[in-house]
Amino acid sequence: MKLCQFGDANMEKAGVIDAEGRLRDLSSVVDTIEPRDLSPRGLARLASINPSDLPVVSGEPRLGIPFRGTSKIVCIGLNYSDHAEEAGLAVPAEPIIFLKPTTALCGPYDNVVQPRHSTRLDWEVELGVVIGSKAQYVPKESALDFVAGYCVVNDVSERAFQMQSSQWDKGKGCDTFAPVGPWLVTTDELQDPQNLDMWLDVNGVRMQHGKTSTMIFDIATLISYCSEYLTLLPGDIIATGTPPGVGMGKTPDPVWLQAGDIVTLGIEGLGRQRQRIVRWPDKTM
Amino acid sequence: MKLCQFGDANMEKAGVIDAEGRLRDLSSVVDTIEPRDLSPRGLARLASINPSDLPVVSGEPRLGIPFRGTSKIVCIGLNYSDHAEEAGLAVPAEPIIFLKPTTALCGPYDNVVQPRHSTRLDWEVELGVVIGSKAQYVPKESALDFVAGYCVVNDVSERAFQMQSSQWDKGKGCDTFAPVGPWLVTTDELQDPQNLDMWLDVNGVRMQHGKTSTMIFDIATLISYCSEYLTLLPGDIIATGTPPGVGMGKTPDPVWLQAGDIVTLGIEGLGRQRQRIVRWPDKTM
Repeated sequence: MKLCQFGDANMEKAGVIDAEGRLRDLSSVVDTIEPRDLSPRGLARLASINPSDLPVVSGEPRLGIPFRGTSKIVCIGLNYSDHAEEAGLAVPAEPIIFLKPTTALCGPYDNVVQPRHSTRLDWEVELGVVIGSKAQYVPKESALDFVAGYCVVNDVSERAFQMQSSQWDKGKGCDTFAPVGPWLVTTDELQDPQNLDMWLDVNGVRMQHGKTSTMIFDIATLISYCSEYLTLLPGDIIATGTPPGVGMGKTPDPVWLQAGDIVTLGIEGLGRQRQRIVRWPDKTM
Repeated sequence: MKLCQFGDANMEKAGVIDAEGRLRDLSSVVDTIEPRDLSPRGLARLASINPSDLPVVSGEPRLGIPFRGTSKIVCIGLNYSDHAEEAGLAVPAEPIIFLKPTTALCGPYDNVVQPRHSTRLDWEVELGVVIGSKAQYVPKESALDFVAGYCVVNDVSERAFQMQSSQWDKGKGCDTFAPVGPWLVTTDELQDPQNLDMWLDVNGVRMQHGKTSTMIFDIATLISYCSEYLTLLPGDIIATGTPPGVGMGKTPDPVWLQAGDIVTLGIEGLGRQRQRIVRWPDKTM
């Protein structure tokens, strides 16, 4: 299934994309996509519904985050060896964990707001893993059983903020720095998340291109590893790192996002995002 | 007011501590203490109630986190100059921000669970600032208007995990690494949060002793600074850093917490906490 939420911010209703790519209104079944709907039982219930029995949504409503109730966004740093190289950093021996606050979440087509004093705004296309069942000390072998599905995440980063201290969270956690969606693609529809093309363009120019097959630590390893340190809850997201091509790594000079720039990004089978960069306090959708 | 929540985990009810220090049942007024109750209007409503009109709670129920709905825990690293010195790190030019996930939250008397593979479990008594109103780009001059109150936080830390990569979140974010409470003491009852004694004992031996007057960046500065990078929501907590005396800094050898150890800590006017260290998977309260 491709699950989503549509409507104005904080007023989203549940939707599902049918076989022809049309948005169907799922709100007669569930008002919104909640963490409980992401459990194996919750997903089985939604899978039993025939999308063609649901009304097609007319017009082009805003798409929000495809589900609600995320308690945390766990990010993995430097998880593509070629990206570590462009960042001038050693390939890590273990996954590097940092966090984004949930105030960073926004819809896949919402504007990304460049904070006041920001000078080095950057992009990172990432595969997002959405947790479906509570995961605590799970072995690698069964780790994928705890996944509800996958989605595109733009791990928007402000490099000046990020590098100002030893800790990255400040430059990774600003409002709108985590566009998620357009859909949550459930595991039944994505047989091999470890073999997907991913790309990101700025103003139509290809900046990032990679494949999830070149992750240093694969998805099962990441879930198992994270679950050794913190409990993953349904609705939590693991952003699994970015392939090469970030603005910071461009030569001869780095490239930073500016107000008015258009970022488009996508992952094979997971849909595409599009964000316009605006400068705070302009937040117009 | 001293607001709290009492009862079994995830079943807590709202309470208030009366002038004689007795726990009164506030659940006839509000079921639980929610973010909306922390706004100036919400607090004014609760302040209009005379605790002596409420039933005294009999027995000694568990105290939980004093309020619900925390979306993020923003932590400030190295915010006491003498602690920075014992950690062997330079006094920072700007506040260092990192995050704890909400899965780290627990009640003030709950057990702290030492994770599997943990070898260097440490303590940090901290003043927690609880946000009452949404704060975004707030100037230092009005920053304290956004505070609902204050509480004790133990910023439990696993130093081996913390130092394994450049990013601290992994060693700061394990389950039960953020005991909060016993009370949320509202601002009307705490005239000068910048002049409070704070202490922490392990098995009855004084380990930390400090005063909030020796913070490098004061509370108003921290709120203003954080709000430049992320939106603070009602119920969010800023853990404002720890004074000297952490286990990592003890000489001639560092001191690490072991299963069975008892940690007690407190801040003047904000009450005290007590945690027993247990080893995962033992979680008995």
